[in-house]
Amino acid sequence: MKKKILFIDPVYNDDFCDTISEYLDNVKRSDTDIEVISLGKKPGPEHLEYRCYEIMAMPDIVRMVKEAEESGYDAAIIGCFYDPALRACREVAEKMVVSAPAESSLHIASTIGESISIIVGRQKWMPEIKETIHKYGFFDKVVSIKPLGMGVLDFQKDHEQTLKRMRRAAIEAVEKDGADVIVRGCTAELGFFKELQNELGIPVIDVSLAAFKYAEFLVDLKQNMDWTHSKRAGYQSPPSEEMAAFRLFTN
Amino acid sequence: MKKKILFIDPVYNDDFCDTISEYLDNVKRSDTDIEVISLGKKPGPEHLEYRCYEIMAMPDIVRMVKEAEESGYDAAIIGCFYDPALRACREVAEKMVVSAPAESSLHIASTIGESISIIVGRQKWMPEIKETIHKYGFFDKVVSIKPLGMGVLDFQKDHEQTLKRMRRAAIEAVEKDGADVIVRGCTAELGFFKELQNELGIPVIDVSLAAFKYAEFLVDLKQNMDWTHSKRAGYQSPPSEEMAAFRLFTN
Amino acid sequence: MKKKILFIDPVYNDDFCDTISEYLDNVKRSDTDIEVISLGKKPGPEHLEYRCYEIMAMPDIVRMVKEAEESGYDAAIIGCFYDPALRACREVAEKMVVSAPAESSLHIASTIGESISIIVGRQKWMPEIKETIHKYGFFDKVVSIKPLGMGVLDFQKDHEQTLKRMRRAAIEAVEKDGADVIVRGCTAELGFFKELQNELGIPVIDVSLAAFKYAEFLVDLKQNMDWTHSKRAGYQSPPSEEMAAFRLFTN
Amino acid sequence: MKKKILFIDPVYNDDFCDTISEYLDNVKRSDTDIEVISLGKKPGPEHLEYRCYEIMAMPDIVRMVKEAEESGYDAAIIGCFYDPALRACREVAEKMVVSAPAESSLHIASTIGESISIIVGRQKWMPEIKETIHKYGFFDKVVSIKPLGMGVLDFQKDHEQTLKRMRRAAIEAVEKDGADVIVRGCTAELGFFKELQNELGIPVIDVSLAAFKYAEFLVDLKQNMDWTHSKRAGYQSPPSEEMAAFRLFTN
Amino acid sequence: MKKKILFIDPVYNDDFCDTISEYLDNVKRSDTDIEVISLGKKPGPEHLEYRCYEIMAMPDIVRMVKEAEESGYDAAIIGCFYDPALRACREVAEKMVVSAPAESSLHIASTIGESISIIVGRQKWMPEIKETIHKYGFFDKVVSIKPLGMGVLDFQKDHEQTLKRMRRAAIEAVEKDGADVIVRGCTAELGFFKELQNELGIPVIDVSLAAFKYAEFLVDLKQNMDWTHSKRAGYQSPPSEEMAAFRLFTN
Amino acid sequence: MKKKILFIDPVYNDDFCDTISEYLDNVKRSDTDIEVISLGKKPGPEHLEYRCYEIMAMPDIVRMVKEAEESGYDAAIIGCFYDPALRACREVAEKMVVSAPAESSLHIASTIGESISIIVGRQKWMPEIKETIHKYGFFDKVVSIKPLGMGVLDFQKDHEQTLKRMRRAAIEAVEKDGADVIVRGCTAELGFFKELQNELGIPVIDVSLAAFKYAEFLVDLKQNMDWTHSKRAGYQSPPSEEMAAFRLFTN
Repeated sequence: MKKKILFIDPVYNDDFCDTISEYLDNVKRSDTDIEVISLGKKPGPEHLEYRCYEIMAMPDIVRMVKEAEESGYDAAIIGCFYDPALRACREVAEKMVVSAPAESSLHIASTIGESISIIVGRQKWMPEIKETIHKYGFFDKVVSIKPLGMGVLDFQKDHEQTLKRMRRAAIEAVEKDGADVIVRGCTAELGFFKELQNELGIPVIDVSLAAFKYAEFLVDLKQNMDWTHSKRAGYQSPPSEEMAAFRLFTN
Repeated sequence: MKKKILFIDPVYNDDFCDTISEYLDNVKRSDTDIEVISLGKKPGPEHLEYRCYEIMAMPDIVRMVKEAEESGYDAAIIGCFYDPALRACREVAEKMVVSAPAESSLHIASTIGESISIIVGRQKWMPEIKETIHKYGFFDKVVSIKPLGMGVLDFQKDHEQTLKRMRRAAIEAVEKDGADVIVRGCTAELGFFKELQNELGIPVIDVSLAAFKYAEFLVDLKQNMDWTHSKRAGYQSPPSEEMAAFRLFTN
Repeated sequence: MKKKILFIDPVYNDDFCDTISEYLDNVKRSDTDIEVISLGKKPGPEHLEYRCYEIMAMPDIVRMVKEAEESGYDAAIIGCFYDPALRACREVAEKMVVSAPAESSLHIASTIGESISIIVGRQKWMPEIKETIHKYGFFDKVVSIKPLGMGVLDFQKDHEQTLKRMRRAAIEAVEKDGADVIVRGCTAELGFFKELQNELGIPVIDVSLAAFKYAEFLVDLKQNMDWTHSKRAGYQSPPSEEMAAFRLFTN
Repeated sequence: MKKKILFIDPVYNDDFCDTISEYLDNVKRSDTDIEVISLGKKPGPEHLEYRCYEIMAMPDIVRMVKEAEESGYDAAIIGCFYDPALRACREVAEKMVVSAPAESSLHIASTIGESISIIVGRQKWMPEIKETIHKYGFFDKVVSIKPLGMGVLDFQKDHEQTLKRMRRAAIEAVEKDGADVIVRGCTAELGFFKELQNELGIPVIDVSLAAFKYAEFLVDLKQNMDWTHSKRAGYQSPPSEEMAAFRLFTN
Repeated sequence: MKKKILFIDPVYNDDFCDTISEYLDNVKRSDTDIEVISLGKKPGPEHLEYRCYEIMAMPDIVRMVKEAEESGYDAAIIGCFYDPALRACREVAEKMVVSAPAESSLHIASTIGESISIIVGRQKWMPEIKETIHKYGFFDKVVSIKPLGMGVLDFQKDHEQTLKRMRRAAIEAVEKDGADVIVRGCTAELGFFKELQNELGIPVIDVSLAAFKYAEFLVDLKQNMDWTHSKRAGYQSPPSEEMAAFRLFTN
Repeated sequence: MKKKILFIDPVYNDDFCDTISEYLDNVKRSDTDIEVISLGKKPGPEHLEYRCYEIMAMPDIVRMVKEAEESGYDAAIIGCFYDPALRACREVAEKMVVSAPAESSLHIASTIGESISIIVGRQKWMPEIKETIHKYGFFDKVVSIKPLGMGVLDFQKDHEQTLKRMRRAAIEAVEKDGADVIVRGCTAELGFFKELQNELGIPVIDVSLAAFKYAEFLVDLKQNMDWTHSKRAGYQSPPSEEMAAFRLFTN
């Protein structure tokens, strides 16, 4: 059964869409069709390190998810490790499933390991990431969160340098913190997990891939057992007349 | 020392601004100036029961907070019990403090009582409210969250009926759940706390007033000790050139 | 890529193997081969309600997992909601992944809902099930665990009666406890989830199916990203000479 | 509206009363009258580092609170970071509010920051302080508790030395532990917060000031909304005849 | 090896000393000598339901423990379920061990059962009892705390009535809350545990006996392995000159 | 009253039985008879560092406990710090009590100290030990778990070397982690606690002795108050006919 999946890179440029797309293509199921889009090229945040940037992107993420559902997609992925607007997207999606990197990677990491270390960019991110971990229930599994002292836009500047810092943090996570699985806590940290994984001999979770594979999995559950976001409480959809009256999807 | 405070009713109509204004005037410090505004009259959510509605309002809340700071306000209050965009507002506010109803009322309630019951509108709200309670650290103090089976817009429809349901829930909270303080978990539930408080003989927290008095308190702390939102981690402000480049405050 | 999966019904009779097999066949991926076996027909526990019964079955479960790996299986499933011997099986499996019903169903349930109710057989089961929920990190998501007052062997006696009790418990879970997803906490409760799900309008997780689909997912992760049980700490394999010396796999 | 507030320095000498008094005068509201007294000059503990010292002071604290209420005070502050006798004082105070440094400073710190580090005197204090943090609900916000290796009486001996150690601990709290707000966990550590705050660029909470400003705030809440300690459960007052029969206030 | 143990009934009358004494005699080890005393007959609290009553008794408890140690006792028991002054008593005891009812009974109950229900007198007690449970680490084991609506002095008024209410609460604890062990949370509830235990078929912990047997056990550990209260941190003793200067033991 | 106690060394050789026996004899009550046996000399695990080894030993542990009960023992001790098969043994024991090292030592350590450090062999053990600590409720008391980098079989190889590493870890636990009590988390680490205890000046818990003394204590509670494992829920015994039909005790 076909699975049409949309990966949203929630920033206002297309710089990484092709890279992500290739990247996902390598690991997709044969019955999956994947498309990667950004929020467009109008001016707006080009990364979401700050909560106020996230918020600027959120209405567009919600609208894009709604459109995706109407275009027949089976799943949408919100490609940022803060999982921005996840509950809102699940509210507006009535037939489609929605996945996000932090949720997906923590479910996977806590299944294949028991002591998770998350490598992040800057200390600034930590309060929000800690909240997320708590919310999903994985606080006791996370043995450390390690900032590299690099912003999102720094990651791709000097790959050599990035990989070097990441390696150092990962080794410390394993030896000092006792981690048995590493989560690279940023969708911008593309393309390094394989090397690191081979070097360290433990799983290194790329969070974009995690969200993508989890999306496939959720679609599979829906197609076969009709298990999908419950509409009873937190993911309840608003009345459609109200959404129209409030101009939710018309900007 | 003067305290200029802005109360933002984060919906797209002015229906309650005057009522809230009068209401706050009764309890303000003599050195406080208060103004109440909504997000304006353009089409948009008239209540924020759904996360997707919250998200639509958030960019305007953030912008309004930024403008308030530039106009010389000392504090802004985000008048919704979900505390929408609180972290983002604290990021963009560099001189001003920001308060919100859930945070404020839980700090107060857990100081004057030890077993809190929160009366909310609908079961739909509960997952997000539970997350908030956890985030602020008050989970072990909350003995019950009691939905009335009413939406935000229902509260003001039939005051008699609303008060009746609220009274029933509150009595059960005290007698069955052992609550010694009640939090009315919605800013729309204006005007009932005094009656209920007198009847029950225990404090009943009106969350709009709580957020307002907490804002005054935070301004006082800032004016006297320079204690205000730390800019070191979660509330760090983005670089101003970046905010400009990303068009954060120009819609 | 082919996925060979073994479902172990960890009891000493084959009574349910065919039923389970049919049942899984309906929901499997096209690239999955599934086989269902029990622990054989020698005398031994025919259900695992007691911890001492579990323990009697555990060495055979571990041996069977080891054999499965040697026969080229990609995954094994331990078909009991206590997840018996899960860590031990992951220790001995060096190439294969292992899944189990409680872990799998709680990961799924906490993704598609936020307030889980688990319907179990008897109060006797509850301490061990609570421990499991805590261990996996989902304690705050579980709003109730509801015993039906029925043992494992009672479930299939009178389907009409079982379904009736289950329905009553599920309705109470939704209306009184605020559940938005139901987990039927026993692998013996086969065949009822669809009806209940349709009636209630919320997801009802069959835990055998959950474990099976999660196994497929874990194999997929391994085949594509080489993400699999970390051998660094808790799932570390013993030295093979020691296992031989200790006669681990020769009874 | 006038606010008469009593600050109790719960030790048996008046050495610090004048200093504290001046100190509070600088930050008080214009409508606040403040008086600072100790437990008197009879022999007794001159600091409360040990629980057995606290206990010796507690009956006098309770009596002093009762007298303060009868003399028309609106609030009493118990000036020790262990918050000694707080519940007992709230029981006997029927019209007055009572605040204490740990409770007050943690409420404030967790509002203006998200990662709190508490600087204390000696490791001896830590178990009781940890209990307090847990009790108030702020355990997850506290990233470190750092003992200086100094007793209460050492703090004022060599200001230079004290400030030096405090600075070193604070810098480590920020850089290594990721703190974005510092709480100086002792009322005896008077007079250093401003320097430290300016140096570090993050809020440094003086716990005596915190308790004082929180007391003003609580009085304000009582005067305007009649929100004050609930008498329903933990803060219930004993029957007055029984207190008389048990000679609670006559030593 | 002889074990001299002092049971302190921390109230200002001797009414129950003989009863307690007889009661403990029945269950003591052959090598134990037990003495039961109260705080004397001077006016003071005759029960400790209120925190302010506890506090009045605490200095005398501490002094009595110190004297007991000097008289050669091996252990002292503080006979009240609030465990008043436990840390302080352990500070001043340098050779002796100290036990208390809540700590002792919760350690025992959580070993012989897994789901504890505590039957208490009045809702007033609950916040302090909850704090205690948290502090000792048993929060997740306690499935309910059930107030009988009776004060300490009511328990012995009408034994028939007390037993009746206690039975009703206990049955509800077992059937509705799933308790498998009952703790009777008051030292004044003497003499009922056997009947209730026989009726219910599950252990019913009398908290005075629990504290007594735990004291014997702690003395045994000290005599044989020299395991006793660590003097490194929370139970550190003050310098003896300081205690003398502060008149800790001379009233 | 006589107390017949069986200590089971759950490995397949008798190498340590005599040593353990002598060791326990030194600290036993005068009314205690102690016997130490292993699981026999047939091939099988000689240590239980891996969960799969534990599982191989569990059925024999359960059978041995059953036999002990039938031979008139009052208590059995499962001599491994993972507490293998503890719940199962309590299920099959209908008159006898069962104790185990982790449970016993954590109850004792958290009574005589407040900040526990556990010294273990290898990082491999940590996930299972953490689960155990959580299960028993002592997570907040444990300030560190420190692996020595030594397997069970290494401990007795070079006593000098073992003691040296243990000392270094213990000193770090006290000075850096703030521990006030040490638990040596392995039953194989025999014979060192006294030296270490004297050197460090804080209690050092030998977990075999802890389990033994706790067993004596539990027998005492049973003999005097009839407090013993509740048969209501988790420790419920299976029906005896079913155990016979399932061949639980006949291998």
